[in-house]
Amino acid sequence: MGKLKTRDRILQTSLVLFNAKGERNVTTNHIAAELAISPGNLYYHFRNKQQIIFELYVGYEEEIKSTLQLPEGRGLTLEDKRGYLEGIFDGMWRYRFLHRDIEHMLASDPELRKRYSELARYSLQRGNAIFQGLVGAGYLKATPEEVSALSANSWIIMTSWVGFLRTLALDDADENLTSMMIKRGVYQIMTLERAFLTEFARKQVEPMMDEFFTPLPREVEV
Amino acid sequence: MGKLKTRDRILQTSLVLFNAKGERNVTTNHIAAELAISPGNLYYHFRNKQQIIFELYVGYEEEIKSTLQLPEGRGLTLEDKRGYLEGIFDGMWRYRFLHRDIEHMLASDPELRKRYSELARYSLQRGNAIFQGLVGAGYLKATPEEVSALSANSWIIMTSWVGFLRTLALDDADENLTSMMIKRGVYQIMTLERAFLTEFARKQVEPMMDEFFTPLPREVEV
Repeated sequence: MGKLKTRDRILQTSLVLFNAKGERNVTTNHIAAELAISPGNLYYHFRNKQQIIFELYVGYEEEIKSTLQLPEGRGLTLEDKRGYLEGIFDGMWRYRFLHRDIEHMLASDPELRKRYSELARYSLQRGNAIFQGLVGAGYLKATPEEVSALSANSWIIMTSWVGFLRTLALDDADENLTSMMIKRGVYQIMTLERAFLTEFARKQVEPMMDEFFTPLPREVEV
Repeated sequence: MGKLKTRDRILQTSLVLFNAKGERNVTTNHIAAELAISPGNLYYHFRNKQQIIFELYVGYEEEIKSTLQLPEGRGLTLEDKRGYLEGIFDGMWRYRFLHRDIEHMLASDPELRKRYSELARYSLQRGNAIFQGLVGAGYLKATPEEVSALSANSWIIMTSWVGFLRTLALDDADENLTSMMIKRGVYQIMTLERAFLTEFARKQVEPMMDEFFTPLPREVEV
């Protein structure tokens, strides 16, 4: 029981440090020092930093997959779509260290690469199913090719959004970025599908877009 | 003259190594060894790796800015748009190490951060001007708010495209990725504006999109 708690504390502290400083700037010694435990105690629970990253990744994956469930026995609604977007951006923010140099993490760990590659495919498939569901429910008018492009563009913007925002506002504290990041991110994805909305859907989506719109740091005016 | 050549060779080799292995995996010693020069010789030309990154960044910035020039004395055409997209994706590919962990590079170098922040603003402004120019020339039908979203979404996808593609195809050789990356990237940006095309423009854009479409590695079907 004591061991389990230390293990969870290591994961929790690693996540905080990785997010704050970037994973490349944090060693297992930093993590142990922050927790006031010995490096030996940390190595009792995790072989190396790579294993900590992997365990954190599993938490991220669970969060994304549990968000992307389709409703059973009924059609999709715009409220579902809103829930998907908020859930995904929340996950992207909570595990924001992961997408900073994911290429490096994937190149360093073949097992992680396999899992991530499956998650990317899963997310793109779910994205397709969600957009197709909105077409079926009469909210969107789009061909399969357009659905596929919407789904890929959404995934790219969702996984890149934290990075984009932080390059614009590197000096701002994380507290300031959190809600702005999630709100404007949801708005940004909604702009992708706006042109495909049916007249019926537009009336419901436009107030939602107003609600989520928040200016970016140093926003560029047209 | 001899000194200038060594300096250029250092930059060239650094770019190749950074792109191939990721900047974080390459030290100035690796660069010197690859060139068969002494570390002291390298330090004669560059104080540290950060200065090499900065000089390479300046080359990238020049490439992006020179691509984003607006034509003088005439309106924009779809061929201009094609030129912008091919030029940008080409630059993103040639300096692909830059966007891998740009947050780290910006946090390590205040001067680079300032330059990059200005480039991002410049690119978003030019993006707005280009999309607005296409509206003015009758190719697109979009409100200023839609132009602004198109421009931000384009910039995010352009700067994230190499990373997205490499996480899908980490095992593929760079040679295989190069042209696919540029072609499909151009297509992907075109999908953003497709829904805003006027009837007149659609006839010209659709064959262009067919020309640029190329399947992604392990593409997910709708």
